[in-house]
Amino acid sequence: MANCLVAQSGGPTAVINASFIGVLDEALENKVFDNVYAGINGIEGILQNKLINLSQIPYSKLKNLKYTPSSALGSCRYKMKNYNEDNSEYEKLFNILKEHNIKAFFYIGGNDSMDTVRTLSEYTKLHNIDVLVLGIPKTIDNDLMETDHSPGFGSACKFIATSILESYLDSSVYTNNGIFIVETMGRDTGWLTASAALAKIDGKEVVDFIYLPETPFIEEKFLDEVNEKFKEQNQVYIAASEGLKNENGEFLSININNISKFHDKFGHAQLGGVCNILKSLIIQNGISSRVKTLELGVSQRAAMHCSSLTDIEEAYRVGRDAVKYALQGKSGYMVAIKRINNLPYSIETTLAEASKVANRIKYFPNNWINKDGNFVTSDAVEYMTPLIQGAPPIPTENGLPLYTILRR
Amino acid sequence: MANCLVAQSGGPTAVINASFIGVLDEALENKVFDNVYAGINGIEGILQNKLINLSQIPYSKLKNLKYTPSSALGSCRYKMKNYNEDNSEYEKLFNILKEHNIKAFFYIGGNDSMDTVRTLSEYTKLHNIDVLVLGIPKTIDNDLMETDHSPGFGSACKFIATSILESYLDSSVYTNNGIFIVETMGRDTGWLTASAALAKIDGKEVVDFIYLPETPFIEEKFLDEVNEKFKEQNQVYIAASEGLKNENGEFLSININNISKFHDKFGHAQLGGVCNILKSLIIQNGISSRVKTLELGVSQRAAMHCSSLTDIEEAYRVGRDAVKYALQGKSGYMVAIKRINNLPYSIETTLAEASKVANRIKYFPNNWINKDGNFVTSDAVEYMTPLIQGAPPIPTENGLPLYTILRR
Repeated sequence: MANCLVAQSGGPTAVINASFIGVLDEALENKVFDNVYAGINGIEGILQNKLINLSQIPYSKLKNLKYTPSSALGSCRYKMKNYNEDNSEYEKLFNILKEHNIKAFFYIGGNDSMDTVRTLSEYTKLHNIDVLVLGIPKTIDNDLMETDHSPGFGSACKFIATSILESYLDSSVYTNNGIFIVETMGRDTGWLTASAALAKIDGKEVVDFIYLPETPFIEEKFLDEVNEKFKEQNQVYIAASEGLKNENGEFLSININNISKFHDKFGHAQLGGVCNILKSLIIQNGISSRVKTLELGVSQRAAMHCSSLTDIEEAYRVGRDAVKYALQGKSGYMVAIKRINNLPYSIETTLAEASKVANRIKYFPNNWINKDGNFVTSDAVEYMTPLIQGAPPIPTENGLPLYTILRR
Repeated sequence: MANCLVAQSGGPTAVINASFIGVLDEALENKVFDNVYAGINGIEGILQNKLINLSQIPYSKLKNLKYTPSSALGSCRYKMKNYNEDNSEYEKLFNILKEHNIKAFFYIGGNDSMDTVRTLSEYTKLHNIDVLVLGIPKTIDNDLMETDHSPGFGSACKFIATSILESYLDSSVYTNNGIFIVETMGRDTGWLTASAALAKIDGKEVVDFIYLPETPFIEEKFLDEVNEKFKEQNQVYIAASEGLKNENGEFLSININNISKFHDKFGHAQLGGVCNILKSLIIQNGISSRVKTLELGVSQRAAMHCSSLTDIEEAYRVGRDAVKYALQGKSGYMVAIKRINNLPYSIETTLAEASKVANRIKYFPNNWINKDGNFVTSDAVEYMTPLIQGAPPIPTENGLPLYTILRR
């Protein structure tokens, strides 16, 4: 008898459960594992023996998790200690796994989680422990190395671009429309903000400027650009990353403490995120007093109702393929996505060494940023477009998505 | 030869164009009017002779506006002067209408716009002007008198409840989840915030507290409630209206100027909207330092991608029926919705005197608020549920909604 274990880690996405169901479906179909266990709250919960046997839950209750956003198994942000300094956690963990006769552990997460995959796999090899450890990629930020893109990113792009189309239309109705700023997530990288370029009407982008963390934010240049565009069009739509940094590499939003700097002409403090800082700059510099903002917030990573079917199916596939790779005896890898073709779009999965993914960041490519540093190129649009295709068949009840909770 | 005119006014909604297309379709089918004109930027634009002849635009370009959010004809916030004091605007307006041989004017808007309908209609009667003036209701706020509900409200409810479901799941993944606050629109009334009660999983509401402008916000009571619930559940989900007022009837968000009051323990100012004020209160009072917020912003009134088919079809129908009522010679009325039955849901349209709608506000009923003043009753849920049913067949292109622009 051999069992397997699946768990989720890091920030949720709309499609992280699709990967979990992918693991479950492949394991059930293959019948290599007698039971599929889930670890609750990631590695942190597993260390507390928070395991549930999914084989004892009716599949009819589980299957709809494929279309339920956020981490159904709970999550954690927990870093394993270096086993050379202290291996007590490792002993505890593998004892718990041994008690449940677990021979394969599938960990769905981002680059921190891939470090856990790396270190656990190393430990099994050092101590001849008969447990395979495989990582399954997940992050809306799309900042994982060694994979063409990360499950979760496509759905976030789709929600962002859709929200931009709609807020652009909303902000274009008056004769004096002013300036609109949308703020996206992406603390370190500009992938999410770049998706603003997908929003087009009649083939023309609705966003005028896209500001990414990869390009230093220069206040004077920003104000000149916005001012000129506003004079030309009488309205400007700006997409900005929450992670914008100045020329010294400091986050703009750190300046939030410098309150005196961010009062508008009415004496109101305009604080919060990057969008409010940009708003204050525009107002203070007299470009326009009509500035509206929209912070898309956690909906970017949770909006299953506006998700990409392609993204869901890929999230599901990397889960399924993780099990297949385990059956081949692989360990210490992350299942990666390799793009075979763009038009028609096709992918295959490959294995990437977890050590090459762990704790590294894939930045938005410099050559996909225009020379003015305020938009992205058509290469970026071609890269993102296939990832947002299709709408999933989300079941509904009383007019709302029918989402499932495993724990409550 | 006789023509008609349609225009839009006030804040946009997801379905305001469906009403416009309803007018157009009925007018085209009935063939009573030779041409359908659109006024651009509402009454303000009509006064500047900004009229376009829709009969000269291919219908294939127009029809998709039924599924395009926001006011395709542009909007305004313009109040006509009292004609007893100065009738020059009225003379100008009716001259422009006469030039275009317009015999019926359909104005899609909220309670301010219904005041325009009232005053224009009165003026035609006083001066024997052969123009019928009819109002078509529109507002996400649902604060129009004399109608069961307002087109635009159902779609906003659906987006709010869906976003709440998703952000609830997103905010429930860790072992220490803290407190989540969603802020909805609704400066004067609690209708939109009340839709938070629609968000259920396994038949249970996910929101713990709903705070409406109709109930005075008492800081101490709020803190006690949240504290107790947090101790009980280790997480709390709060829905709050942007229009919350204290016992003196002052907006909470006015206190935004009192900066010193809203610094958290790290010295950060926590300002912006109501959700940030509530966040500061919670942190300052030591209930939890983990407080996340989500301001749904303009997406509430623009999110066609998450709209209600029922709402769209009703918006379309009040547009169509406005033309039918004009053919009966009616003027000075708003087309209202009368609910015939709740289960199965059915409505009919009726006429409400514009004077009874103009400049008045329909508040959320007191008897639909629970006795603790922090949630809504099942009557409210039964009232809202039929309004969010069904999803519209929005055409897509490249994975995104295909929206249409009339002016650019």
